[in-house]
Amino acid sequence: MCESHAYVLKEGKEEIFLENIDVIRPEEGGRLLLRSIFGEQKLFDGHIREMSLLKHKIVLEK
Amino acid sequence: MCESHAYVLKEGKEEIFLENIDVIRPEEGGRLLLRSIFGEQKLFDGHIREMSLLKHKIVLEK
Repeated sequence: MCESHAYVLKEGKEEIFLENIDVIRPEEGGRLLLRSIFGEQKLFDGHIREMSLLKHKIVLEK
Repeated sequence: MCESHAYVLKEGKEEIFLENIDVIRPEEGGRLLLRSIFGEQKLFDGHIREMSLLKHKIVLEK
């Protein structure tokens, strides 16, 4: 499976935000919509810092 | 393999921009750095419209 996990970078540490992400879609107002393969959705008020699909990792920051 | 392909949305049509993407990193100045699993790098002057990791698809737009 090719889903990734999203982490929020806070004070140099990565905290898990949402696992098993399929869809990422920037919304109006500068927020990111993240949706997991199970249909769970979360909005993140910030942006993508970096992602590696091979590492299955998305790093978010405010 | 879990890399994705990036397409640019132009006038309602999707044109391939870079294949087999591993890393996506927003750069200063509003550009996106995309790097393939083969080390090829391209800068895109725009943003992510939507991506689906399960569909291995990243849609970019200016």
